[in-house]
Amino acid sequence: MNAYRKYLVEFIGAFFLILTIGATGTLNGSGVIPPLAIGAILMVMVYAGGPVSGGHYNPAVTLAVLLRGGMPKRDAIPYILAQVLGGIVGALAVLEFTHRLNPVLPFNFRIHDLLLSEFLFTFALAYVVLSVATLKKTANNSYFGLAIGGTVMAGAFAVGGTVCAGAFNPAVEIGLACMKLTPWNNIWLTILANLAGGAVAAGCFCLIHPKADRD
Amino acid sequence: MNAYRKYLVEFIGAFFLILTIGATGTLNGSGVIPPLAIGAILMVMVYAGGPVSGGHYNPAVTLAVLLRGGMPKRDAIPYILAQVLGGIVGALAVLEFTHRLNPVLPFNFRIHDLLLSEFLFTFALAYVVLSVATLKKTANNSYFGLAIGGTVMAGAFAVGGTVCAGAFNPAVEIGLACMKLTPWNNIWLTILANLAGGAVAAGCFCLIHPKADRD
Amino acid sequence: MNAYRKYLVEFIGAFFLILTIGATGTLNGSGVIPPLAIGAILMVMVYAGGPVSGGHYNPAVTLAVLLRGGMPKRDAIPYILAQVLGGIVGALAVLEFTHRLNPVLPFNFRIHDLLLSEFLFTFALAYVVLSVATLKKTANNSYFGLAIGGTVMAGAFAVGGTVCAGAFNPAVEIGLACMKLTPWNNIWLTILANLAGGAVAAGCFCLIHPKADRD
Amino acid sequence: MNAYRKYLVEFIGAFFLILTIGATGTLNGSGVIPPLAIGAILMVMVYAGGPVSGGHYNPAVTLAVLLRGGMPKRDAIPYILAQVLGGIVGALAVLEFTHRLNPVLPFNFRIHDLLLSEFLFTFALAYVVLSVATLKKTANNSYFGLAIGGTVMAGAFAVGGTVCAGAFNPAVEIGLACMKLTPWNNIWLTILANLAGGAVAAGCFCLIHPKADRD
Repeated sequence: MNAYRKYLVEFIGAFFLILTIGATGTLNGSGVIPPLAIGAILMVMVYAGGPVSGGHYNPAVTLAVLLRGGMPKRDAIPYILAQVLGGIVGALAVLEFTHRLNPVLPFNFRIHDLLLSEFLFTFALAYVVLSVATLKKTANNSYFGLAIGGTVMAGAFAVGGTVCAGAFNPAVEIGLACMKLTPWNNIWLTILANLAGGAVAAGCFCLIHPKADRD
Repeated sequence: MNAYRKYLVEFIGAFFLILTIGATGTLNGSGVIPPLAIGAILMVMVYAGGPVSGGHYNPAVTLAVLLRGGMPKRDAIPYILAQVLGGIVGALAVLEFTHRLNPVLPFNFRIHDLLLSEFLFTFALAYVVLSVATLKKTANNSYFGLAIGGTVMAGAFAVGGTVCAGAFNPAVEIGLACMKLTPWNNIWLTILANLAGGAVAAGCFCLIHPKADRD
Repeated sequence: MNAYRKYLVEFIGAFFLILTIGATGTLNGSGVIPPLAIGAILMVMVYAGGPVSGGHYNPAVTLAVLLRGGMPKRDAIPYILAQVLGGIVGALAVLEFTHRLNPVLPFNFRIHDLLLSEFLFTFALAYVVLSVATLKKTANNSYFGLAIGGTVMAGAFAVGGTVCAGAFNPAVEIGLACMKLTPWNNIWLTILANLAGGAVAAGCFCLIHPKADRD
Repeated sequence: MNAYRKYLVEFIGAFFLILTIGATGTLNGSGVIPPLAIGAILMVMVYAGGPVSGGHYNPAVTLAVLLRGGMPKRDAIPYILAQVLGGIVGALAVLEFTHRLNPVLPFNFRIHDLLLSEFLFTFALAYVVLSVATLKKTANNSYFGLAIGGTVMAGAFAVGGTVCAGAFNPAVEIGLACMKLTPWNNIWLTILANLAGGAVAAGCFCLIHPKADRD
């Protein structure tokens, strides 16, 4: 049974994703830097781990791939656990570097803006993942990591830090909350918005790609 | 009849393009951020939707592909309608986030600069699209989205916000006007400059690539 | 005789290269923007035109490809003329946008720094071009434009605007001088440094790749 | 015996890497620029030299590739010597440009932060290199340079300049010390952290990829 290899890959990717998000958000973090760094680390982890686990690093993406029929059902829960664990351990690593710093004020957004923007860009992310990484027609392309990292970068530039935290990823949300960068009280709503984005993207993807193309 | 799949892809891409343009232009928008974000979202939407619809998201590009003989004639009008609808709905989504903000002053450029710069970079965009995405010789390359997104990014850096809005795209122009980021009164001239850039690029492409290479 | 197609491609690429350099250098140009824009426009023009002309847009690159035996000898002079013409016409287009602006102070660098830095990064550029775009072993890769544009971007970040203009390209030097961004009096020395960089790169490339790999 | 070709490629890559790091760190260096420039030059040198030498430019990467069984044992020492020599000569080239400048204050970090962050991101770098550049399953991909350069860029954004120098590379550490950008006294600890990161990544890679996939 080699499934643990895939879970390890999901853990490593989620760990470095939240490490980079947390470090740029508290140490080096203003303006243009966090989205560039986050897009880059997601891109490289997708390239490194994609051929093993699919390189999700994100429960909303795992939900979308699952609904589209692109992964074994029994992997879904372990993937999500590995991702969330990666997010938590990554957050602890960031706190190792920054515990001596003054606490950063947590984000505080209007619920309406938060949910709409997290829904929309998680939809975009899952739509792009399904389109570039799960079709036989474009298998073995070399752009899948660039496209996936680029989507999160564009979303973080567009709405991150102004109307939402720009996570588009429940594992990242939990990591952010562990670092007190996001309040725990509205994290569950954000996670629901992320999962809804992933689910709607899966439906939309199935509308666009007939069943023959998806198998 | 599966054509609606293509129109849906064109709608989704244009929607996220104008959403990102509007959000970075009003929420997060200074200096280096909008061109990076716009180039990235166009790149990822081209990668995601290109294999389905060609990934135009731009009536000037659709005109260029049509003139070069790279798409069915009957698709041209539905493509353009889907793109414009995506631009309008994307603009409405941006207003959802920003309606409480103070109005942003609309761009106000010299007509001569506006038309020349929109013409030149729409030419560059259509020239790049035709070259990287419609030739059999370079079919199945992995750079088409990077090249297309990179062209709009370079153009936005070069002339966007100083001598023109840097749309290079009639659907985006209409979306910008809906958000009151561009005045309605000179939008039609800009659209003409965009379409002229696309048409001249198609002619130039046919000069460079003999008919045998184009089929 | 279809050679004019190649010359037209070289003209178009050089035109947009100098247009972007000039526009970011006078309109939008501070810090991070010009290198990003210049790297992007070079990348996209290399992707668009590379399969036709090789996508040099630079007499120093043409010299390197010629010395390495990667192009017909009879094309060298027309390529260089097309590149220089593109640079001059691009400079005139920039002046169309900026003629009403106050004159920008021309760069003024120490000759020693200027020559060393232009030599080193033109070497790097020609070394990368020969390595990624002229070997059968890596033919049909999708990274050639990204690597070539990335080299000029890195060089412009490293030394551009502080110890040299960061052109690494005689056609760009001439265009910069037409825009009065570089003084005419030391341009010839810079061009010699560029050509020397290209020539040394060709020699170095031939040391690294045995003759069998080069044919 | 053609091995010298590989050593020359390693020398050239390490030279331009430290040249770019040193120049952006002393001439052009604030905020967003050094990580972009460093990621770009590493990317292009990996694309240019990867097919010849593997494009390590980094003793910690060479250690990881060696432990994973991805290179001849007899190449390891010459590779590392070529990399360190490239780092030293690159540092001398930077001093040629900057010797007249006021001395830059050397970095001064907490040892705990320094070692942890250098370990983690050197692990990430070696993990990505092994994953994208040494597996038969993904041979001939076009993203290897982008992924490798992107990892260093993300690491430099996340921790570079705040909790460590962000080298993730012993040859770069030595070059930084030659330029007095890093104190000599804690460089050996940093190098140990880098090598440990490379070694642990090799072990982790072998856990993830069964022996059959690695040969």
